[in-house]
Amino acid sequence: MMIEDDMENGSLRPYSDRLRTFPSMRSKSYTPLIFRIFMGINVRVLFILLLLCLGAIFYVGASTSPIIVFVFSVCIISFLLSIYLTKWVLSKDEGPPEMAQISDAIRDGAEGFFRTQYGTISKMALLLALVILSIYLFRSSTPQQESSGVGRVTSAYITVAAFLLGALCSGVAGYVGMWVSVRANVRVSSAARRSAREALQVAVRAGGFSAIVVVGMAVIGIAILYATFYVWLGVDSPGSMKVTDLPLLLVGYGFGASFVALFAQLGGGIYTKAADVGADLVGKVEQGIPEDDPRNPAVIADLVGDNVGDCAARGADLFESIAAEIISAMILGGTMAQRCKIEDPSGFILFPLVVHSFDLVVSSVGILSIRNSRDSSVKAPIEDPMTILQKGYSVTIVLAVLAFGGSTRWLLYTERAPSAWLNFALCGLVGILTAYVFVCITKYYTDYKHEPVRALALSSSTGHGTNIIAGISLGLESTALPVLVISVSIVSAFWLGHTSGLVDETGNPTGGLFGTAVATMGMLSTAAYILTMDMFGPIADNAGGIVEMSQQPESVREITDVLDAVGNTTKATTKGFAIGSAALASFLLFSAYMDEVAAFSHEPFKQVDIAIPEVFVGGLLGSMLIFLFSAWACSAVGRTAQEVVNEVRRQFIERPGIMEYKEKPDYGRCVAIVASASLREMIKPGALAIISPIVVGFLFRILGHYTGQPLLGAKVVAALLMFATVSGILMALFLNTAGGAWDNAKKFIETGALGGKGSDCHKAAVTGDTVGDPFKDTAGPSLHVLIKMLATITLVMAPVFL
Amino acid sequence: MMIEDDMENGSLRPYSDRLRTFPSMRSKSYTPLIFRIFMGINVRVLFILLLLCLGAIFYVGASTSPIIVFVFSVCIISFLLSIYLTKWVLSKDEGPPEMAQISDAIRDGAEGFFRTQYGTISKMALLLALVILSIYLFRSSTPQQESSGVGRVTSAYITVAAFLLGALCSGVAGYVGMWVSVRANVRVSSAARRSAREALQVAVRAGGFSAIVVVGMAVIGIAILYATFYVWLGVDSPGSMKVTDLPLLLVGYGFGASFVALFAQLGGGIYTKAADVGADLVGKVEQGIPEDDPRNPAVIADLVGDNVGDCAARGADLFESIAAEIISAMILGGTMAQRCKIEDPSGFILFPLVVHSFDLVVSSVGILSIRNSRDSSVKAPIEDPMTILQKGYSVTIVLAVLAFGGSTRWLLYTERAPSAWLNFALCGLVGILTAYVFVCITKYYTDYKHEPVRALALSSSTGHGTNIIAGISLGLESTALPVLVISVSIVSAFWLGHTSGLVDETGNPTGGLFGTAVATMGMLSTAAYILTMDMFGPIADNAGGIVEMSQQPESVREITDVLDAVGNTTKATTKGFAIGSAALASFLLFSAYMDEVAAFSHEPFKQVDIAIPEVFVGGLLGSMLIFLFSAWACSAVGRTAQEVVNEVRRQFIERPGIMEYKEKPDYGRCVAIVASASLREMIKPGALAIISPIVVGFLFRILGHYTGQPLLGAKVVAALLMFATVSGILMALFLNTAGGAWDNAKKFIETGALGGKGSDCHKAAVTGDTVGDPFKDTAGPSLHVLIKMLATITLVMAPVFL
Repeated sequence: MMIEDDMENGSLRPYSDRLRTFPSMRSKSYTPLIFRIFMGINVRVLFILLLLCLGAIFYVGASTSPIIVFVFSVCIISFLLSIYLTKWVLSKDEGPPEMAQISDAIRDGAEGFFRTQYGTISKMALLLALVILSIYLFRSSTPQQESSGVGRVTSAYITVAAFLLGALCSGVAGYVGMWVSVRANVRVSSAARRSAREALQVAVRAGGFSAIVVVGMAVIGIAILYATFYVWLGVDSPGSMKVTDLPLLLVGYGFGASFVALFAQLGGGIYTKAADVGADLVGKVEQGIPEDDPRNPAVIADLVGDNVGDCAARGADLFESIAAEIISAMILGGTMAQRCKIEDPSGFILFPLVVHSFDLVVSSVGILSIRNSRDSSVKAPIEDPMTILQKGYSVTIVLAVLAFGGSTRWLLYTERAPSAWLNFALCGLVGILTAYVFVCITKYYTDYKHEPVRALALSSSTGHGTNIIAGISLGLESTALPVLVISVSIVSAFWLGHTSGLVDETGNPTGGLFGTAVATMGMLSTAAYILTMDMFGPIADNAGGIVEMSQQPESVREITDVLDAVGNTTKATTKGFAIGSAALASFLLFSAYMDEVAAFSHEPFKQVDIAIPEVFVGGLLGSMLIFLFSAWACSAVGRTAQEVVNEVRRQFIERPGIMEYKEKPDYGRCVAIVASASLREMIKPGALAIISPIVVGFLFRILGHYTGQPLLGAKVVAALLMFATVSGILMALFLNTAGGAWDNAKKFIETGALGGKGSDCHKAAVTGDTVGDPFKDTAGPSLHVLIKMLATITLVMAPVFL
Repeated sequence: MMIEDDMENGSLRPYSDRLRTFPSMRSKSYTPLIFRIFMGINVRVLFILLLLCLGAIFYVGASTSPIIVFVFSVCIISFLLSIYLTKWVLSKDEGPPEMAQISDAIRDGAEGFFRTQYGTISKMALLLALVILSIYLFRSSTPQQESSGVGRVTSAYITVAAFLLGALCSGVAGYVGMWVSVRANVRVSSAARRSAREALQVAVRAGGFSAIVVVGMAVIGIAILYATFYVWLGVDSPGSMKVTDLPLLLVGYGFGASFVALFAQLGGGIYTKAADVGADLVGKVEQGIPEDDPRNPAVIADLVGDNVGDCAARGADLFESIAAEIISAMILGGTMAQRCKIEDPSGFILFPLVVHSFDLVVSSVGILSIRNSRDSSVKAPIEDPMTILQKGYSVTIVLAVLAFGGSTRWLLYTERAPSAWLNFALCGLVGILTAYVFVCITKYYTDYKHEPVRALALSSSTGHGTNIIAGISLGLESTALPVLVISVSIVSAFWLGHTSGLVDETGNPTGGLFGTAVATMGMLSTAAYILTMDMFGPIADNAGGIVEMSQQPESVREITDVLDAVGNTTKATTKGFAIGSAALASFLLFSAYMDEVAAFSHEPFKQVDIAIPEVFVGGLLGSMLIFLFSAWACSAVGRTAQEVVNEVRRQFIERPGIMEYKEKPDYGRCVAIVASASLREMIKPGALAIISPIVVGFLFRILGHYTGQPLLGAKVVAALLMFATVSGILMALFLNTAGGAWDNAKKFIETGALGGKGSDCHKAAVTGDTVGDPFKDTAGPSLHVLIKMLATITLVMAPVFL
């Protein structure tokens, strides 16, 4: 208010004094309710409560399995480490006041949006919880349930409770990701004034904090649920549920996580890219001012977007990936152990939790291995940060291979098939290799050191049109190699599992699918380190923005520019990684779905035959769902960006002094426009994704009823799921790679190639970059989440189709 | 040569005298060999030969079935009508010499390219024929074959002969389409100087000629093959083949047709759009000269492209559509008749031929109903040509419904299920309705009278980037409604057929798939009229180009502009139509493939279970194939367009007099660049489409052999086919609609909206248009053909997978 009055009175103070622009947002408290409650309690009481909780958890864990106790211990040690990392990061200085002011503005915007966005999401989650509850209360129970004594009502409450817990944990994961990034950004900027190495270390440790919390929370959440259900339902005692059926109860947790992740990614993705595109189109293309220039009225919105889109959303996304993958692997492990009549199946069921516990350990070692070299302040040749990150990754991956081999020997050894664990260890290796090759392919297509991006840059020299055609072709083409790699790894992991020696009663090999599951776990066995590298990107990006806006000397900007460029590469590779694991996890959840349907319908459900017209139609609808969802995600960004462009143009016209630094742009307007538009626009695609499988399944269930085809609804949904998965993988690969390549083609030209900054060629490349923005940061990552959400929603909603 | 010397001597004569620019091409003869042989023969001898041929055909037909005689008669009458139409068109004047000169240049370029292109294609076809021959000579024969006495060698020669005949007919269909369009274009231009109505009539009759020839040739070709095989193999006599197995022998014909159509569409599509994009990017965007301006060095290449890309390729495309659809429906009719033990199955088998005979009749009536109104020269308010075309379409569609009902009663009446024909008539109606709704949806998304294109135009006002994002979103979104419509029509036609009362020995209803087949036929029951409207577009486009280049008065240009705009709409709607029928035909060919595999492998093959990892991988690879194919088709256009842009820029720099009409551009260089590039670029995507299903099938056959899974290769190929079909439909819808919408958004702005021609908004819209060009005229239509080619190649190559 005050600032606006000043503006109207014309009493403009020096520029750097006037950056705190969100008084209205500032006045509101932005601490989530749950923290406020905790903060209201006396510290000692809190400490005692915490100890009691821990005691209870360990007690329940100990009554379940020693493996659970191990998992709990690792998670708690990791949380302690993450507290150390935060303290370390927060102990760094915030730099000069102008930096802190900009950082405050970013934090206010991000936390304001987060609050509103998660308010909307939690209302929707509660509504959906009611729907699930009523469906489960009115469905018939399965024979297993009847025999195990878990009644309809219990099962309904369990599913809903798991759903809500998953949603809550996912929300907390997102909040943690953003909480640290809005605090670390300014500290990285400040450290960049001293040395590149220190800036890198601050960014990595901040990213590492949230990565450890996200992975640890996914693991401990599932472990607690599992142990609680185990003790509460008296599993494995006579007349109650078998332990091999227990993992199916956890599906609600995965669905809750993916539900929140979907809306977080959609809302955040629309926010960040609408602001980015809007800022670039007027700032860079029309006015010719650099990125993150303080004269651009959309610049704060853009920086806020990095936090809500990249940090918060990616935290929720990875949380959901890990949760979905753990649960699907637990289900498959249970099913297989039951078929093979293994005496103690808990090793097979709990294997994924142990893998991710080791993930926490090895990734922590990797994160801590990146340290400030003693003499950095003395001589200052800027080391390539990518090399440092790669070194940390090498450490992590070597340890991960060893830990993975150890875990398979520990948990998957069975006397029925003495060499099975070795086969599964090889499956894990297949997964790790797949991840590695994926990273290489993504680099080849998106790094300007290689041919494709250079050809794309060259195509900009003949105009906007040829640039777009070349980028779209590049993106479409880039789907081929990853698909070949996934194909090879699915088939080889399946066969390694199949030939592991594990057989069912009739002597048929049964380990195939579990082999694929183990490969997926191998792929994700360094998830925490990968997430660290991913979080590093937006923090560095923000730090660069703060440096640019607070007009630091050139040398500081150089450091943050290098970090930012590395962040772009790590971001692109993480996406390849995420989509690869989504493909595998979704295939696993699909077979879990078939088991679930068979259990409910009291009929075998082993085949999804696409030669049946209705099933084919289901597939057609599934693929269509992906296209429509991508359309809505992209057009949301386009529409919002148009609003931003019009607002920015208006400000430049109405306040001509902005360009000469004489007048201050109204950053708040752009933030408000983007925030309200992205909340509005995230609903349509999100609702589409949730409602359409339910509607399709229900309609075909009715059609099947009248035409005498039992299970038609379930089969059609299965086809929908599979076709959506396949199309979703391809579409996401296309969108991510095209976006990344356009971005780097522009960066390549900005290094001075083909005419450099300001040339017509550069303008064409900027057009490509803006088109790529919603591709790679809105629609693409939302598709990762969508694929897994579809898999979990069909599992939870199975009663509707039967 | 002479002209180039003049140029160098600087002795420039007045502009209009100097348009004949292709002396080197002109010197070569451009008549295909087969015509030259015929022309060498005495006319009387030719006439007697023709009569003898006709006699033989009718004799064979009469020995087969009276239905075949009916089909022959209708086709021959249609051919006579088409000769009348050509004579009528050719009797029109070619206008002033400057028009004729431009037209000659276009004709030379088109015929030169056609010759080279089809030379390459025929070499590839011969090579493939050898491959097929060797595969068929070494495979084992099926039980049916053994019982029917058709040996391995006979079957090999039959397949190869049918393949070559299909390829030849497809080539002729393409040639006919181009032959008439390069002659009609200048006559339309000339007629436009007199009245709009006359110009419309000339264009429609020229399009009608090639449509009738294309459809007639598809029908008579299949009928002759069928009758010949029937008589030669002594079908239905004891110990020989059953008539219900006969249609499977025709598959080679469909494959030959789609093989040629694929390369024709790829080569032609790359040619036309590379020239168009190149011409637009420099001419319109950089130099600001209008479309088809004689100063643009790429303008002749662009006009040539309309003929080789739109006329020749679309002729081959529609030929292939009709052939594939007739053959698949005949196979299904035969299979069903056999299962139901219908006494005389020939009605069910020959039904598609009769439907298309009636198609020829009703479409001819529609074409002839568009006549020159008596008093057009007196009062001249330009009627909307769309209304006139629509009126003709209404006539055709009403007659088609009646004829379709009549044919079902005539051929599909059986005493076993007296009301079955009525159900099938309803299936036909479903198909006709589907076609109609498809046309409406396409119009909604691509016509600037409606919201989507207007929103797209508005998005251009905020820059190139938002225009592209909006166009891509629009295209992706536009897939939803057509998929819903196809889904409803597949399910409803299947159920109408299923409940028709036709049952097999065990009492199971069997008419479902045939119902879907009948719906497909209903959809294509006005194919000849649709093709006429489609051919009309490029002829009108060319006429407009000639008018513009020969600098006719404004009033003449107005007339051709209106015709051109209508042509754009009809072209877009035909594509919706083509993709809808491709979806249905491909689903039919898929079940034919399953029958074929079952016949060869002596094992039942009823299910394609995507829960098997290898089968899922097959699906993944199938979808990937579509993405990669689209990538390569688009990038071929992009790369070639870049060459054109560089050449045109070079000419503008080296000959600065071009812009002042003082120097003449070197049109021939652009023609040569585009021709050689498009021949080179069509190979890679085409080879991908042909080789990959064979390689995938063969590899998984071997894998299946070693892992003890019989039929694995066939199952994986089936999944590949289905996923490729689904992804192909969606991708084609996306590409076609996005391209059409961008084109019309630009046209909308050119009407003066949002700043009109020359504004920044218009420039952004032109970028969108150039991006849309390869989408809608190269990759999109190639995908229609690809989908059907995949279905026929798997049928023909089935022995490789088993």
